[in-house]
Formats: sequence, C-alpha cells, structure tokens
Amino acid sequence: MTPSPYIKPYLQTPGPTPIPPEVSQAMAYPVVYHRAPAFVPIYAAALENLKKVFDTQNDVLCFAGSGTAGMDSAFANLVQPGDKVLVTSAGKFGERWRDLAEAYEADYVYLDVEWGTQIDPAEVDRALTENPGIELVYTTFSETSTGVVHDVKSIAEVAHKHGALIIVDAISGLGAGELHQDAWGLDVVVSGSQKALMLPPGMGFASPNEQALARAAAKPQGRFFLDWNRTSKGQKKDPPDSPFTPPVNLFMALGKALDMILEEGLENVYDRHRLLGRAARAAMKAQGLEIFGLDAEEAAVVTAVTIPDSVDGNQVTKVMRDKYGITIAGGQSQLKGKIFRIAHCGYFGPFDIITVVSAVELTLKELGADIELGAGVAAAMNVFADAGVPVNA
Amino acid sequence: MTPSPYIKPYLQTPGPTPIPPEVSQAMAYPVVYHRAPAFVPIYAAALENLKKVFDTQNDVLCFAGSGTAGMDSAFANLVQPGDKVLVTSAGKFGERWRDLAEAYEADYVYLDVEWGTQIDPAEVDRALTENPGIELVYTTFSETSTGVVHDVKSIAEVAHKHGALIIVDAISGLGAGELHQDAWGLDVVVSGSQKALMLPPGMGFASPNEQALARAAAKPQGRFFLDWNRTSKGQKKDPPDSPFTPPVNLFMALGKALDMILEEGLENVYDRHRLLGRAARAAMKAQGLEIFGLDAEEAAVVTAVTIPDSVDGNQVTKVMRDKYGITIAGGQSQLKGKIFRIAHCGYFGPFDIITVVSAVELTLKELGADIELGAGVAAAMNVFADAGVPVNA
Repeated sequence: MTPSPYIKPYLQTPGPTPIPPEVSQAMAYPVVYHRAPAFVPIYAAALENLKKVFDTQNDVLCFAGSGTAGMDSAFANLVQPGDKVLVTSAGKFGERWRDLAEAYEADYVYLDVEWGTQIDPAEVDRALTENPGIELVYTTFSETSTGVVHDVKSIAEVAHKHGALIIVDAISGLGAGELHQDAWGLDVVVSGSQKALMLPPGMGFASPNEQALARAAAKPQGRFFLDWNRTSKGQKKDPPDSPFTPPVNLFMALGKALDMILEEGLENVYDRHRLLGRAARAAMKAQGLEIFGLDAEEAAVVTAVTIPDSVDGNQVTKVMRDKYGITIAGGQSQLKGKIFRIAHCGYFGPFDIITVVSAVELTLKELGADIELGAGVAAAMNVFADAGVPVNA
Repeated sequence: MTPSPYIKPYLQTPGPTPIPPEVSQAMAYPVVYHRAPAFVPIYAAALENLKKVFDTQNDVLCFAGSGTAGMDSAFANLVQPGDKVLVTSAGKFGERWRDLAEAYEADYVYLDVEWGTQIDPAEVDRALTENPGIELVYTTFSETSTGVVHDVKSIAEVAHKHGALIIVDAISGLGAGELHQDAWGLDVVVSGSQKALMLPPGMGFASPNEQALARAAAKPQGRFFLDWNRTSKGQKKDPPDSPFTPPVNLFMALGKALDMILEEGLENVYDRHRLLGRAARAAMKAQGLEIFGLDAEEAAVVTAVTIPDSVDGNQVTKVMRDKYGITIAGGQSQLKGKIFRIAHCGYFGPFDIITVVSAVELTLKELGADIELGAGVAAAMNVFADAGVPVNA
C-alpha cells in the first residue's frame, strides 16, 4: 500500500484515528475464550478504567458495534413511539440524533443550530419552555463535522430544570475534551472506540445512570442486542460476564489503551489535546486561513479550516492523500468542498501537527492559495516552545 | 499468561476459535480511514467473497457486533409486535430465537425439540399446519450447544410450502458445515465472525434475499444501526460504503481469512471439517465414551461427548484448562456438567484433534474414568491415515 517512502501513509482523520503500536500488539494477541479465567481480569479492568475516563460511577455498557450502536441504544432503550424528545443539532452528528428520532418514531422537537456555531443553552431553555412535556434531550459534545465542542454542562442544567434527562454523544470528544459525566449531571454519555480512545472501530459505549436504566427497564421490549439492562446485568456480575460474545481482542486493546491514557493522566491528556488544537489553529491563522467554527481552547478534538475561495475545495483532501500520503477529512454534507479538518483526538503528538500543517501548506500552495511555506509550521512550533513541550513530562 | 510451556494455551472452544497468524497480522495493520481508497478494495473484496461462503447472490450485510447482532437484525427488520412466527429450538441458541421473539413481542409458536436431537421437518410441517398464518420460521443450522447440525434444507422446503420465509442461524456452522443459501432456498442466513470464519468476535452477518428485504422495507421504523435497508443501500453503492464506521481492522482480517478459505476451496474446507469430526467421534468411542447428539458425518462443527457417571462433570473443563492449558467448552444450561465439547470449526487441523483427545484422555483418567491412555488418539490417527491426510492437498 506504500509504493515509496515519498508517500508514507499518515492517518489524520477524526475517526478512525491511528492507534499506538502497543495497542495493535495487544489486539493481535491470540484469541481467548471470553469466559476463561485469562479473559476475566482483562474485561474487569477495562470496565473499571472506562468509568475513570467517563468520570462516572455508572457502569459503562460495552457493545460490539460502532459509536452509532451506542447512539442507537440511547433511543432503543429510552424512547417509545410518540415520546416527546428534544434533539439539538449543529452538524452531521446532531443530524444522526434526528435520524434516530425518526427511526424510533419519537415526537421530537428539532433545535437546528447553524453549523459551526455552539448550541446556546438559552435556546435549549426556550425550546423546552415552548414545548412542555419533553422528557429527553439529545445533544452533542464534540461535533466532529465542524470541530465545535458544545457546552454540555450548561445544556444539562437547562434540561434538568425542565425535568428532562440529557443524553450526550461524546463519540469523538471522550478522552480528548474535558468531560465529567457525574459532576456535570449527564444522564447518559455515548461513545465509541475509534476516536480518542486510540482503538480501531468496533465498540460502542453507553453509560446510563440509574434514572436512565429505570426508564429503560420500564419498557423492556423492542430491542435485544442493544438492551441496556441485559448488558448491565452481565457487567454487574462477579466476575463480570458479557451477555453475548464480546470482541475479546478489542478488549485486550482497550485494556492497553486505557492503561496508557491513565498513565499519562486524564488532565494531561486534556492539556495535550488543547495544546495540539491551539497549535493547529495558530498555524492556520499564520497562513491567513480562517478557522471554521470555534476558535477557542475547548476546540481540542478536531480543527476545521475554511478553504480559501481561490482553491478548488474538492482537491485539498485528494492532493493531501495522493501526493503526500496524508489522509485528512474534508467537509461533510453542506460543508463538502468548503472546509478541511485536521484531527488531533487520540494518539497524536506535536510532530503529527507539524507534519499535517506542512502538508497543508504544500497542498494549498500547489492549488493556488497565497501561502508562505513554513509560516504555519513556525507558528505551531512557537506554540509548542511556549508551552514547554512535552508538558507535564 | 503462560507460566510454563507445560501449560501452553490452546483454544479449542466453538467460538471464539483460534485464528491463523496471517489473520492476526492482517488485523494488526495500521488503521485506515474507511472512505480512503486504501480501504475500498479490501471492503469490496470481502463483501464479494462472503457471498461465496454463503453461496448466495444476495448481499451479505455486515454489522459491527456479535453473531447475536445478526440474529437480532432478523427480528428487528422482519417482525412487528403481534406477527405470527414459528421458533424451532433444540438447544441454547434455539432458545435465543425464542428470547428474541419475546423481546420483539412476536406472536410465536415454540417448537421445543429435545436437546441433542435433530429438528424433524415433519414436526415443523405439523406446527405450521396447526397454526395457520405463520409468516416466518426461525431455525438453527449448527446448534453449538449440542453439536447437532440440522437439516435446514428440508425445513426450508416445509416453510415455503406454507408460504413462510425461513431464517437460519448459521453462526457456528457457516464455513464448517456444507450450506448453500440460494440452492436450499434459505431466505435469510445469519452468521458471526468468531467461528469457522477464523476471526475474532466483532462482526455479525445477515444475508436477506429480496423478499426478506422487501418485508423489512415495508416497515422501516423501530431500528437504525441494525437496519438492513440502510446497510444494503450502502453496500450496493459503487464503491461500497458502510453507513456507519465499519470495523476496518476486522475487515482486513476478514479479507485474509476469506482468501485462505477460498484458496483451500470450500468443498475441501467442508471435507476437512467432516474428517475432524469423524476423528473426534472415533477417538471418543474408542474410549467407550458416548457421543451426545448426532453421531453422523454432518456433525462437522463441534463434537459433544457425554461425561461418564463415574466422573465429576464440573471438573473436566477445569482440569483440561488449569492442568493442561486447553480451553474446551462444557455443557450449557441443562447440559452443565453432563457433556464436554470438542470444537473443530475454523482454524483446526488433525493435530489439534490429537492434542485435545490426548488431554481428554489424561483428564478423564485422572478424574477416575476407565481410560486406556492413547486408545482414542490411535483411533483418531487411524481415521486420518485412512483418509490419506492431508486430503485434497
């Protein structure tokens, strides 16, 4: 797949993300039987350590699946046809909540927020005031399609004021942006393996609190594989036992990845992500490029950049990939050809930013933009130098 | 995990099964973006080659999930509350169909067949005659809990005579026992990655034909992640595109495993499984042990053996594992402590049978059974010698 070292492959998308070699090795360990004593401590440790990353006392329910399986479970378990819910959306993954509301025939109010802007808690408050009887609020932490990280803590306060539960899609944000499920009162947090958890895709998570589990238990039909109570019952056993064959090799990988995250320390992990975001934004702005969405410290997951009018927007990711071997994500849906996205969620360090910035400079210059080669790289380097990289070492 | 080569670990359970080192290596390849050109041919080839193993023209829909996700999808997509279905069951995994029928509030007739016996197509005929209006028949190909392989071809004929669709759980059987979806008229076949496909757990499959897809499309609500039409639409694109992030590393592994299976040749793969089953049964019978369930050529997936009364049945798997490092499966539910199971579905060759048979002999002798060490091994060796192993080389 690599015809020449001129185009060594670099994965710089916001999911899947590159995974550490230690994690690959753990995943390649010979398969073990999921009920054998050899698997039990791996499974139990992963379940305990996941709670630390979610910062919750709830069980983090694990499903073989994608992140969308986790999102799906938050409808399949909580929503019956006709239930009143509020869906907030400011991007492609907010729209997925809406698609789920359609699929599960919820009676939903749709708070459609401009892509690239933050969801305003006051707007959520107004929507809940104007539509009494809403029991569930679905929202997004890091909106991967725009790079915007939303203030889910404030949105949760508003939801609770109106007596609603809040369900947060933290698929790309968990382990990248600072999030505290219990302290922020998030009733359910959903995530996936293939972002900042530094794993391949293949696992979805949901961490319902007691209220959410009770709501699910009150109507147990209409689901099976993604049923929370079935998986919760298994995970609560001593030793824990998955109701269905778990992805044992992904659990071995998860164990290793969580060890790495907790050894670095969650606060340090968040600091690192903030720093990489800051460097990426500084680099882009040094080239006169405009940050799409949130130009702020909390935009620690992915940096979206507006493609200048002088450039054919559909060529950027193509040249990056075909000429330089670097896979970045372009814009999705209405943003197709209008933005590109630099990922920094997961197994990313300063020189990943240097690499991608230098390739962006070469690419945009080649495509006709007004670029001074190296200026963005220097800006990123200055951010790293100012921070005293490696921070917290 | 291996304190000494005295107890080298051997995985001999009917799922998860051991995987070839080539497949482990493929899985450990660096993550690629699922929409990058590097992934497209891997994904497309896997989808095409899966059809060959199912022996179908239908698309084989792939889900991140376990085999149960595939089974779940065959209820979530086909059944609305109150729909009349027939569930046939002759073991633990037949019971899973019943649990799904409960979860999806089907109006179901339950054909409860004695564990260890085959489902009689005439009984299915009688159940369908006595209960007119049944539209769906759920059955099992290889019942992993008993080792019995059912005559799904004849059951399909009966179902079709009554105008019902048939849905077959082939999770442990696919790629081990001979199965021809289209020629046998199986409307939906469900499977999973972690059995004879020689992969870790993490993928579920369902291969609905046009009639099954049309039934699903007629009532598209109440599901999302496991929705057949959503995944079908994605897989039919050119190039194929998964609606949600696919488990890219498992697909790399799947590509390699399918190459190996097709290179060996499906007929040869079936012959090998039949041979391994024959050798396992001959070995057990040479020790005076009784085969539980089906003592026949089609029992090619897993050999279940009745534990002699003289032996504490709960000690067998424990001694096998703790003293000899060999993980086999015991009995489940009502068969707990009454049988043990020797798996031979997937990446198994003659010396895996020799190994497990010799460990069974040592274990049973230690536990007080009347065993002549080596007699079973010799019987297995004679089967291999008579067959001229390696067959078809």
